[in-house]
Amino acid sequence: MADNLHFHEHRVPRKEREQRNKHQSRVLWFTGLSGSGKSTLANATEKILHDRGMSTYILDGDNVRMGLNKDLGFSPEDRTENIRRITEVAKLFVDSGSLVLTAFISPYRVDRDEARKIISNEDFIEVYVKADLEICENRDPKGLYKKARSGEIKGFTGIDAPYEEPVNPELTVETAKADIDACANQVVEYLINEKII
Amino acid sequence: MADNLHFHEHRVPRKEREQRNKHQSRVLWFTGLSGSGKSTLANATEKILHDRGMSTYILDGDNVRMGLNKDLGFSPEDRTENIRRITEVAKLFVDSGSLVLTAFISPYRVDRDEARKIISNEDFIEVYVKADLEICENRDPKGLYKKARSGEIKGFTGIDAPYEEPVNPELTVETAKADIDACANQVVEYLINEKII
Repeated sequence: MADNLHFHEHRVPRKEREQRNKHQSRVLWFTGLSGSGKSTLANATEKILHDRGMSTYILDGDNVRMGLNKDLGFSPEDRTENIRRITEVAKLFVDSGSLVLTAFISPYRVDRDEARKIISNEDFIEVYVKADLEICENRDPKGLYKKARSGEIKGFTGIDAPYEEPVNPELTVETAKADIDACANQVVEYLINEKII
Repeated sequence: MADNLHFHEHRVPRKEREQRNKHQSRVLWFTGLSGSGKSTLANATEKILHDRGMSTYILDGDNVRMGLNKDLGFSPEDRTENIRRITEVAKLFVDSGSLVLTAFISPYRVDRDEARKIISNEDFIEVYVKADLEICENRDPKGLYKKARSGEIKGFTGIDAPYEEPVNPELTVETAKADIDACANQVVEYLINEKII
């Protein structure tokens, strides 16, 4: 039987991808209240990294909630599964050589710790996007706090569901204390200091 | 209240990523029987593309089954959900500017058609990795056919579960008729002819 197929597979290794990209790959895990500025900060950070020629990608509600995780709701179990899948996808992007930025409330410490465990401590950079509830509620970019206060939305983080602050994040960025470019540069400087980029 | 956060977000668009990478992004969806050579072909193809400086990634059983889809089994429903999640992840990689190669049996036509619909017809390249069942069973790289024949594995594609051949794939590669490099070059030539790379 004619059969020339070899079953020895050689995958392009992550190291080789990183060397070619001229930076290391990591997950920047932005966590914080709704309205704290996670997505805005992730986008501003990505723009800087992209403009410096790096391989980047953002995972956030815009591209995950209506796609991969469209079967999930907002119960504690579904939030955990939501974060688990995002974690696994972020891990794939890291393996592909990218700096991947995730922007999700991810309110439970145990879920973020599990993400760190799955992705690996070295590859996981927890960025606490810190802003007081009062400020976030005042911003209310999507009108969700208003709906949560009126009872139209149940189980909203910060109102009737908990947000568990990071205990020991790699980085804390306070979005009410500096403009967004300064906040993004704080993240970029961290990556430079850690010799990741 | 001091609050300098702007909520205008500007995502780095896919077009800009593609321009920087100097190639377009697509999903190469390899489908075929177990042992047809999907993963081997995907790896060989990726190696060529990577060596030409392109941004690539492979999704296959090795990095998906024990991670993102570890909660799924092999029932028809779980196979469908397996393919759905892979589809959504592949779509994210396309959006990130990569040529993503997926290597899964994906035996059901309706699942592959759904993948095409979700990813978009333009971005979806179905590659039928064609080899006779007899050849695949003879190769049996993981000893799975033997287990399926003995009844140790149930619902194995080609034995006691159907494989629905692609009706109109963009490309058919017959892995028993040429060596793996020639097969991989056939895929690369397709991408060149279509002006994707």
